[in-house]
Amino acid sequence: MRVAEADTKSIGPDLLGIEELSAEQITAILDLAEHYREQMNGGTEKLDDLQGIVVANLFFEPSTRTRTSFNLAARRLGADTVDFSSSGSSLSKGETFVDTALTIEAMGVDLVVCRHRTPGAPHMLARHLKAGVLNAGDGTHEHPTQALLDMLTIRQRRDIRGLKVALVGDIRHSRVARSNIHGLQKLGAKVIVCGPATLIPRTITQLGVEVAYNLDEILSEVDCVNLLRVQFERQRGAFFPSIEEYAHLFGMTGERIRRAKEGLLVLAPGPINRGVELTPDVADGPNSLILNQVTNGLFVRMACLSLLAQERRRLRQSG
Amino acid sequence: MRVAEADTKSIGPDLLGIEELSAEQITAILDLAEHYREQMNGGTEKLDDLQGIVVANLFFEPSTRTRTSFNLAARRLGADTVDFSSSGSSLSKGETFVDTALTIEAMGVDLVVCRHRTPGAPHMLARHLKAGVLNAGDGTHEHPTQALLDMLTIRQRRDIRGLKVALVGDIRHSRVARSNIHGLQKLGAKVIVCGPATLIPRTITQLGVEVAYNLDEILSEVDCVNLLRVQFERQRGAFFPSIEEYAHLFGMTGERIRRAKEGLLVLAPGPINRGVELTPDVADGPNSLILNQVTNGLFVRMACLSLLAQERRRLRQSG
Amino acid sequence: MRVAEADTKSIGPDLLGIEELSAEQITAILDLAEHYREQMNGGTEKLDDLQGIVVANLFFEPSTRTRTSFNLAARRLGADTVDFSSSGSSLSKGETFVDTALTIEAMGVDLVVCRHRTPGAPHMLARHLKAGVLNAGDGTHEHPTQALLDMLTIRQRRDIRGLKVALVGDIRHSRVARSNIHGLQKLGAKVIVCGPATLIPRTITQLGVEVAYNLDEILSEVDCVNLLRVQFERQRGAFFPSIEEYAHLFGMTGERIRRAKEGLLVLAPGPINRGVELTPDVADGPNSLILNQVTNGLFVRMACLSLLAQERRRLRQSG
Repeated sequence: MRVAEADTKSIGPDLLGIEELSAEQITAILDLAEHYREQMNGGTEKLDDLQGIVVANLFFEPSTRTRTSFNLAARRLGADTVDFSSSGSSLSKGETFVDTALTIEAMGVDLVVCRHRTPGAPHMLARHLKAGVLNAGDGTHEHPTQALLDMLTIRQRRDIRGLKVALVGDIRHSRVARSNIHGLQKLGAKVIVCGPATLIPRTITQLGVEVAYNLDEILSEVDCVNLLRVQFERQRGAFFPSIEEYAHLFGMTGERIRRAKEGLLVLAPGPINRGVELTPDVADGPNSLILNQVTNGLFVRMACLSLLAQERRRLRQSG
Repeated sequence: MRVAEADTKSIGPDLLGIEELSAEQITAILDLAEHYREQMNGGTEKLDDLQGIVVANLFFEPSTRTRTSFNLAARRLGADTVDFSSSGSSLSKGETFVDTALTIEAMGVDLVVCRHRTPGAPHMLARHLKAGVLNAGDGTHEHPTQALLDMLTIRQRRDIRGLKVALVGDIRHSRVARSNIHGLQKLGAKVIVCGPATLIPRTITQLGVEVAYNLDEILSEVDCVNLLRVQFERQRGAFFPSIEEYAHLFGMTGERIRRAKEGLLVLAPGPINRGVELTPDVADGPNSLILNQVTNGLFVRMACLSLLAQERRRLRQSG
Repeated sequence: MRVAEADTKSIGPDLLGIEELSAEQITAILDLAEHYREQMNGGTEKLDDLQGIVVANLFFEPSTRTRTSFNLAARRLGADTVDFSSSGSSLSKGETFVDTALTIEAMGVDLVVCRHRTPGAPHMLARHLKAGVLNAGDGTHEHPTQALLDMLTIRQRRDIRGLKVALVGDIRHSRVARSNIHGLQKLGAKVIVCGPATLIPRTITQLGVEVAYNLDEILSEVDCVNLLRVQFERQRGAFFPSIEEYAHLFGMTGERIRRAKEGLLVLAPGPINRGVELTPDVADGPNSLILNQVTNGLFVRMACLSLLAQERRRLRQSG
């Protein structure tokens, strides 16, 4: 964040990661998201909190789901949106990447939602742009709105303080895991990371988490499992012997649900691989909150965009 | 349709095919489309019949024209739209297809416009989604809004009851033909299908149509010809000897127009292959209603979306 | 233009090139653009000058920047927009190109923004469509809105009358150069074209410009340089020995800035190749107006769309 904020309700001019947020700021986002949920359920009136604001989606990594969610969130609040996606661009052409963003900004853009394969890319943008920057995933670093929607989904069912949450799967490459670790711990949850030893970096304990290599051993003590997506495009057999083996050891099944704590919350960031991270009966069963996560994603993104737009308006008036 | 409807003005929660509609329901759609046409011609005021409604276009088969028409129709009525297209997806990954749709729906989508190469794909969606589903073409099965816009275009010139309409060309692979056969007959027209024997399935007479293999023999008795598009991507020389031969036998020419009934209505779903289904002088001549069809497509889609949105609002309030 | 206009404030029903515009018409566009700039800076209220108007972007050549700028300009004024892009289409299928445009128009489109690799393509559209046509670049012919935004950017700093402007680089293939030559001369500026002899057509002097082959010789007398983009995709080493040589002879450097007139205005249509047309210190330095150009592009396009929409409404009412 470029501006130190006295008011804890402000999240600053950019949203780059959960690591930089205080518990109060996270709670402020979740509260506003909940507020939007109530307003949207009430009817079909169009909100105008982002009236006159232009939101640009700069996606340098393909993503239909997240981009669509941000687009809908922005438009539900009355913003204009513009998509500027390019999978061909790369940070190796550093200046070009920033020049592209500066050009978009010069078209009158207020908020830039950025996804990039390079960790820190949104931070670089934030240093160069006056527009607010929202990190929609930067390499293996952070994916703050995913963690926020996960936390909102959990909070709708349980008090997060004191809760035990397992993040299951590829911890090494997961920005979702990193953002969840930061956020859940700030809100007072205990986090266990669980997966094949090859996919859990040894340094992860420095973040204050517990490590487990056997899902069955922790099943009876956790209140929530977040089943990270197996990213076939990244694995190529290097990190675990086979998909079948992975599913056997770490896949959530009806049988495992029965051995888990009653009311186990099952989350998955999706898109899910049925039969890998979880079996269809679990995905469609009563413990699954997968579609709630998608819906909450809309509300969380509305809240983030709205808070950044407020800050943007404040800066514009004062400067 | 998932709900039996007493009120004939309602078309139910989904629009999956013309086969499922009554003559009264078809007429209700055409009347509303005509109403929108009058409103749009009057000026540039934005209508708000779909205010607060989100329409998702799920196109698993490429189509710029139909998708654009649906997008414009939705936005002209004040809806938010979101495009979620993927030519890579397939029903062979059955669950993924439905998961994709469920995810889109969970983002707050009210109506899903679906095109898919597999017959029945929109019906499968309708069984899984609470959102209203509108079939924008499912394989060789149905393309209801195309038939509706064809019927609206005819109805603006002639009383459909008692009219004789020829569908010319590739009947075998044409969802446009199937939807037209159902619709025209329900409204009291007589339908003749005409084309090379290889492109007319023998079972077609079970639908109550007449079959002709020689266009010239029926020219003097039909009031309207609907020239189906030769889909080069599907033919590969298997079904007729050559394009030249097809154009010679079944192409509409100025000379054929002169031998036809006076005031013959010429329709073509497009995009047209000039010199194949029809010659340029016919395409641009006074009998051609091709561009009227495109314009009516907008109004028909506005009407369908509006009726489904009404139903959706009714279900949302009662449930 | 299809209609001769008595009122100099009208720019006619289409905007096909700067060559066809009078100085009064150019000034009217720039004045309206300036008016929009003031309105936009004042706040975030949405303007409604294009309420009820549908703008279609027909881009047959890829362009994210210009297309995005037109989209934002249209939507900032309350228009609906539709993108209909196809790099696969070509004017060699002449009728198909016009048929595509006629189909888009029949969907209720009022204004068509067209980019095409063939000079004259927008003029062909204008002859066939009732919709207003706006040329967004036709091959090596014209790119009127680029010249307008260049002129607006210059006019915000200097009186154009009597100003000396150098267009530097690939004059031969540049529609930006052609449009700038016409516009700047109409407004009373003196234009020098400067570049490698292979990239300056001999006939260019017929347009009334001066020719220079050595940038250093004219540096001390020009008030403004417009650094045309080196289009690597077009050069392939045929027109100059190497990029290094080009940068050495025609690239704008800090050292050249020091030898130039004080307050030299540096423009570049972008996207810029840092280290080729100009060095990073110049691109980011106080003489550079590159990002102002981008911002002005939005206002100029708002002005053009607005003037064409007025004309369109007038024609619609009278016809």
